[in-house]
Amino acid sequence: MYIIICKDEKSRARRGRLVTPHGVIETPVFMNVATCGAIKGGVSAFDLKDVHCQIMLSNTYHLHIRPGDKLVRDQGGLRGFTGWDGPTLTDSGGFQVFSLAGLRKIKEEGVTFASHIDGRRIFMGPEESMRIQSNLGSTIAMAFDECVENPAEYNYAKRSCERTARWLVRCRDELYRLSQDENTLNPGQLLFGINQGSTYADLRIRHMETIRELDLPGYAIGGLAVGEETEEMYRIIETVEPYMPEDRPRYLMGVGTPANIVEGVHRGVDFFDCVMPSRNARHGNLFTWAGKMNLLNEKYLNDPRPIDENCGCPACRNHSRAYIRHLIKAKEMLGMRLAVLHNLYFYNELTAKIREALEGGYYESFYQKYRTALAERRPD
Amino acid sequence: MYIIICKDEKSRARRGRLVTPHGVIETPVFMNVATCGAIKGGVSAFDLKDVHCQIMLSNTYHLHIRPGDKLVRDQGGLRGFTGWDGPTLTDSGGFQVFSLAGLRKIKEEGVTFASHIDGRRIFMGPEESMRIQSNLGSTIAMAFDECVENPAEYNYAKRSCERTARWLVRCRDELYRLSQDENTLNPGQLLFGINQGSTYADLRIRHMETIRELDLPGYAIGGLAVGEETEEMYRIIETVEPYMPEDRPRYLMGVGTPANIVEGVHRGVDFFDCVMPSRNARHGNLFTWAGKMNLLNEKYLNDPRPIDENCGCPACRNHSRAYIRHLIKAKEMLGMRLAVLHNLYFYNELTAKIREALEGGYYESFYQKYRTALAERRPD
Repeated sequence: MYIIICKDEKSRARRGRLVTPHGVIETPVFMNVATCGAIKGGVSAFDLKDVHCQIMLSNTYHLHIRPGDKLVRDQGGLRGFTGWDGPTLTDSGGFQVFSLAGLRKIKEEGVTFASHIDGRRIFMGPEESMRIQSNLGSTIAMAFDECVENPAEYNYAKRSCERTARWLVRCRDELYRLSQDENTLNPGQLLFGINQGSTYADLRIRHMETIRELDLPGYAIGGLAVGEETEEMYRIIETVEPYMPEDRPRYLMGVGTPANIVEGVHRGVDFFDCVMPSRNARHGNLFTWAGKMNLLNEKYLNDPRPIDENCGCPACRNHSRAYIRHLIKAKEMLGMRLAVLHNLYFYNELTAKIREALEGGYYESFYQKYRTALAERRPD
Repeated sequence: MYIIICKDEKSRARRGRLVTPHGVIETPVFMNVATCGAIKGGVSAFDLKDVHCQIMLSNTYHLHIRPGDKLVRDQGGLRGFTGWDGPTLTDSGGFQVFSLAGLRKIKEEGVTFASHIDGRRIFMGPEESMRIQSNLGSTIAMAFDECVENPAEYNYAKRSCERTARWLVRCRDELYRLSQDENTLNPGQLLFGINQGSTYADLRIRHMETIRELDLPGYAIGGLAVGEETEEMYRIIETVEPYMPEDRPRYLMGVGTPANIVEGVHRGVDFFDCVMPSRNARHGNLFTWAGKMNLLNEKYLNDPRPIDENCGCPACRNHSRAYIRHLIKAKEMLGMRLAVLHNLYFYNELTAKIREALEGGYYESFYQKYRTALAERRPD
């Protein structure tokens, strides 16, 4: 059940709450990405509590290939397997099938592809994706869709959109069937549909109108941040958002920078996820309220201050820039771990501050300040 | 100040306590190795508390080369830099100079060698080693010595021994001078001398008799576990131990397996250190009270039990064999981190149980049970 607690008057921003069988999710929310059942950088489910994560996202494709979703199911699903006891979301596997796997062959039934680990041929369609996600026992399952790269040819995008809409009906029916099974891990598993249509406004709108008819518990905007300009991404969100049901959470998949998140909220988005906080951290690229910084910069060599004096993360509470910089330079895992913990804490804090601003009625000034500030380089 | 709390009647084993400016060390003790100022596997100074570490060991050679001991000093020494607030020990750099660095040239003054990072020529002698260790501000500094590989030619080992004894006097004098400096980080820094002499009983004894004259706060047995058979190592400990001062801690450098530690204690050793718990962990080789296990073994694929049901480490408290095995297979850093935490906890617990057995008067039966049990493969 999704409740809108309050809305901003000048923008499309909303402050909401999704109640799930695995706990409450306060939105806007950033989901922390644990691809193979662990956050990159040696971060465990228990560390996620420390960085104020609300919901952990894992990848269906990766877990299906290794260790296998049946094994995860035998271990109590994602929550039992990883030890994370809060809400989880699993993607459909579609994105990885279309971006990572080799030798793809798409038919109406689904996709045949080669595993990126050992090359073995695997078939995945809407039903298979739902069965895997049911085995993983996630709180929220994502529909199996085709994510086309941008730019895409109009007629291809149109046909792909129509197939994705047909696949969504099959996803819904299969998940309904699986949820009736008395041995299912999560009988209350929620299905989110995914809007596609590349960068074409008419395709995006028509597709959204079609899939909202299914009255699903949530809807995502997919196929963005895959090659198009940032301004075009914002334009598409603005185009499709009025056609999304008001009383359902909206999830902008795979986005993005802190500034992207602020802009997304402004345009009515509630859920976000991105590998950026962990991927960037490993190269010393850190996010702070005063802007971005690269810790490998020579000027931090002997700097005794924490990454950010106003940050309460485990890295900033305990360690200096000089120490973490040394660890990353020396390729010590601890350096990556501390940097990842910092960035995840920042992303979770960012959405917490957005929620506070919406509740406090000062979202407009928050937005105006941080939409630019977060994208700039930190001065010190 | 070193106090012997009690001794075993049937062996040379002792239960002791070293009081230092940075805290009390209960012996026998295992020192946890943080080579570059961090334990391999993403383990921080704060995690070390969780695995019941008493004393952290860091490497002079590595820290001198990167980030530089002056930088560490500016950050408050090893304790300020890493956040570890307990006792620390630094090795002398000698072992790495003789095993890792390239193009060595040994003279009476010291050793010229090439950095293994960038090849630049570096000179290190007794005085340089003491200055670096003084900058690192460790609780215990180790004497600069030559560690010869086994087997070594008798005359070479003899000459090397004599030089190491002359170097020890220079170490003592230089550390004394440095400790008088009003800006020194640790005016109470303790110097441990190192016994050498390869596998030759007469050289070992003569060298020990020479260096004990200096009345240092502790003595180590160096140059073991560098190529000789385990039985020969035990024989050398037995040979030299009667010549070590009774009222000073004895440290067996770089040793070893859990069984080696039990055997070392039996022969009168108080301090141990080894990279084995962290190095083995990264390949899934784990230590438990029921013997060794390799977690990558197929039989653990779907095993919901913790690594060891009787272990209280952060990995065993929270995660299953199946999960940690999956993480190591998938090369997720978290897998290595959890395995390292387990092994370090086991080593620290091992010495804690040895201390309990000595205090409780049942050391003999503990020794008889675990000298073999710990070296065997775990049955389940």
